[in-house]
Amino acid sequence: MSTTTTLPLYRQLAAHYRGAIEAGSLQPGARLPSLRSLMQLHDVSLSTALQLCRTLESDGWAEARERSGYFVRRPQRLGMAPMDEPDADVQPDPAQYVGIHSRVSDFVARRRAADVKLNLSIARAAPQFYPADALRAAMTRALRLHPELVAGVPPLRGDPQFRTVLAKRAVAAGMVLSPDEVLVTNGCIEALNLALRAVAQPGDTIAVESPTFYGLLQVLESLGLRALEIPTSPQTGLSIEALELAARTYGDIKAVVVVPHLQNPLGSVMPDAHKQRLVQLCDAQGIALIEDDTYTELLDAEQPPRAIKSWDATGNVIHCASMHKILAPGLRLGWISAGRWQARVEMLKYTQSRNNEVLSQRGAGEFMATGAYDRHLRRLRTALRSQRERTAEAIAKYFPEGTRLNLPPGGLQLWVELPAGCASAQVFDAALQQGILVAPGFLFSNSARSDHFLRLNCGWPYDAEIDGALRTLGGIAGQVARAA
Amino acid sequence: MSTTTTLPLYRQLAAHYRGAIEAGSLQPGARLPSLRSLMQLHDVSLSTALQLCRTLESDGWAEARERSGYFVRRPQRLGMAPMDEPDADVQPDPAQYVGIHSRVSDFVARRRAADVKLNLSIARAAPQFYPADALRAAMTRALRLHPELVAGVPPLRGDPQFRTVLAKRAVAAGMVLSPDEVLVTNGCIEALNLALRAVAQPGDTIAVESPTFYGLLQVLESLGLRALEIPTSPQTGLSIEALELAARTYGDIKAVVVVPHLQNPLGSVMPDAHKQRLVQLCDAQGIALIEDDTYTELLDAEQPPRAIKSWDATGNVIHCASMHKILAPGLRLGWISAGRWQARVEMLKYTQSRNNEVLSQRGAGEFMATGAYDRHLRRLRTALRSQRERTAEAIAKYFPEGTRLNLPPGGLQLWVELPAGCASAQVFDAALQQGILVAPGFLFSNSARSDHFLRLNCGWPYDAEIDGALRTLGGIAGQVARAA
Ligand SMILES: Cc1ncc(COP(=O)(O)O)c(C=O)c1O
Ligand SMILES: Cc1ncc(COP(=O)(O)O)c(C=O)c1O
Repeated sequence: MSTTTTLPLYRQLAAHYRGAIEAGSLQPGARLPSLRSLMQLHDVSLSTALQLCRTLESDGWAEARERSGYFVRRPQRLGMAPMDEPDADVQPDPAQYVGIHSRVSDFVARRRAADVKLNLSIARAAPQFYPADALRAAMTRALRLHPELVAGVPPLRGDPQFRTVLAKRAVAAGMVLSPDEVLVTNGCIEALNLALRAVAQPGDTIAVESPTFYGLLQVLESLGLRALEIPTSPQTGLSIEALELAARTYGDIKAVVVVPHLQNPLGSVMPDAHKQRLVQLCDAQGIALIEDDTYTELLDAEQPPRAIKSWDATGNVIHCASMHKILAPGLRLGWISAGRWQARVEMLKYTQSRNNEVLSQRGAGEFMATGAYDRHLRRLRTALRSQRERTAEAIAKYFPEGTRLNLPPGGLQLWVELPAGCASAQVFDAALQQGILVAPGFLFSNSARSDHFLRLNCGWPYDAEIDGALRTLGGIAGQVARAA
Repeated sequence: MSTTTTLPLYRQLAAHYRGAIEAGSLQPGARLPSLRSLMQLHDVSLSTALQLCRTLESDGWAEARERSGYFVRRPQRLGMAPMDEPDADVQPDPAQYVGIHSRVSDFVARRRAADVKLNLSIARAAPQFYPADALRAAMTRALRLHPELVAGVPPLRGDPQFRTVLAKRAVAAGMVLSPDEVLVTNGCIEALNLALRAVAQPGDTIAVESPTFYGLLQVLESLGLRALEIPTSPQTGLSIEALELAARTYGDIKAVVVVPHLQNPLGSVMPDAHKQRLVQLCDAQGIALIEDDTYTELLDAEQPPRAIKSWDATGNVIHCASMHKILAPGLRLGWISAGRWQARVEMLKYTQSRNNEVLSQRGAGEFMATGAYDRHLRRLRTALRSQRERTAEAIAKYFPEGTRLNLPPGGLQLWVELPAGCASAQVFDAALQQGILVAPGFLFSNSARSDHFLRLNCGWPYDAEIDGALRTLGGIAGQVARAA
């Protein structure tokens, strides 16, 4: 092994092991040497041996198994084509102003009527992946020590301790916020409502990614706002060119809502250069930039990515985030930092739901202030990566030819493109009859563009039941595709 | 003492004691005989002696003091004139469509900048009046037994146990609701937002009581709705004639919001006949009727009054309520039952903030299912009555001539009419300089009608500090009145 390179030692060692795996001398499933063996074998410190294993893990060449060490795996090479990049020139379709409500209501009604055995329509991990015990312990402690949590009035803006922890963690994403610039909300969805109500009036046009999560389309419709869908790359997210074009064509875009990291449903991640251009474009055009940070902590990355707001010099970026899917689905904790609209957003929050209850904030804040939070996130990411990959393998195996898929670098779900003409509504119906609930593509756009897509949750531990359900789904998709 | 009457024994005894108090043979402050002495004196059972004391207490002739028995008091006879009844013919003033936001923002900003020693601007009891320990115990138990409260997703509509308790209690107010017709919200304020969003579009006109609490005026303005203020009696609440007249004059009233019991700020209580006429009028005119039940449990009454919704035969009444001020100010628990708009309100709730966290619902639901809840309410009402009366006495003593006041039959506050021309804004400013925060009348109407009123909280235990503050306030009001 050459030592002339300037790479750190653990990186050199990682390259060595990757070579061994690629050459087949280390087979997938084989156990890697223990930390102690690695230290002896390569004459390195414990910390270097640890960094080596973590690097192999985060690059996808090894996986940790609880209490038994690291095991070789091969990063996914799917037997499926990736999705096409969108055409930035697409003229917005007036039909897309049509509402999403009735479709979602229909979806909800059918879901309620059905006997759902496996829910793949959500975007959430299974309960056992969340640190319920530690959070319960922290909340129990807070209840014991602080009677005022029940009898006193919740403080303005949210619990100061929690806001301080959030402001501190925001530094890693490049945001410099004082705790008073953090306003706690009932989940990210309330943050988005407040952001939109602060910057726009009913009748105004809001640019959104296409496809986007139907929750956002519902919010827009319920507020009387018009969604202008902007083509979005499955790799790099919102097309800045397309937004530029739309801004030139429609002079009146009031705001744009983007999910820069692990976009829902695409899983795309915006490169930093795109984020910067977006900030500039929005500044120049007077478009408020609303950043939805819901999934960032689920990104498989050594460093947390920079928030769009980290480039905000004018207060034009509104940052919205949530703990709901990364820390505890039972808690409805989100937050917003609204730049130049902060005072207006605070007033709207007070008017809409008053201050949040403190207890869950206190519990979450205590937990997030410790190393346990990052350990939890690391475990969650590792579990999700393996579940995404196994789901993708099953799709490659069971779904009809012509199915396409991008494997996103993190997150809770896969966005699956069925063969052209294979209507997601039909797949949804047939699957529901088998007790399998999927999120049909038509929910993710007001246009017909996503009608032949499905979004599948990867939050459940991969097992025979999931595998069987994916085989069933693949069979259904094949039938629908052949009949199309 | 005659025994020929058909009144129950305890009632006869109560009349006897009332006579003695009115005759002056029992002086205010004197200790009533102990339960044991009453039993011997009148040869009655313990339960009759207890009923006697409770009756004297609820009629206002005695007050219980923790661990030392019952003491004589005299129901209030104030040396002040009551307020005038409003003129139902008042033509709505277009100026009242002007916003409340800037005034409230100004109020909030000044409050934050000041060093507040005593806050009389709130509408809430002191923390010690709420059953924090029992609620904390119930919540701690729930946390121990139910990990899914943290890691699972909160159920649709709210915790089923809590909704069941709410539906059960609603029966006493004449409402027949299934638990599935109860939707849990973040306080009554969210319920009001949802109700208004369900029935009206921006630009629509909503009839409200005048004066009304500024929270409602803020909600209307933030939703782009126009408040049409309807004259309201300090005794009997919303003037049905005035609403009828307004409906004839302005054909386009979309909804009316009323607080039938202990209206904020007036403290008025609508007679049942008015409630019935209101239901009929709204049905006939196609006006949605939104009932805000926030304070009902604080009414001094042997029987809970009937909710407006109890007369609703068409689904036209939306019932909104809250636990925030009667059970626990630290919990943000409210609920809504929206009649024919139920599905739409559920959808808007999901879109605005998703389902509520479960823990506080579980704690509140457990507590409310026991007799402890009614005991708590009884204690709270008793304390508030004495505090209201002492505050009223102090106002009679310290405030300038021409001050007027109605003593409401329950609730957290007094609405004080200063002599004509005595601007509440000036009183507010001067009081704040002394560290006393009051709610100035101008916040309670978009018109100038309430400019010479103050709303004073009676939730603090009456003591020398409160008494001193009321004397200071009276002095300030006198100065402002003389300068006017
Ligand atoms: C991108 C995105 N933003 C916001 C939300 C809502 O977040 P919360 O549950 O925190 O309200 C979701 C959930 O579906 C989401 O996917
Ligand atoms: C009449 C009335 N309704 C509703 C509210 C708000 O209630 P909650 O705190 O439950 O949101 C208030 C509080 O000020 C009020 O006075």
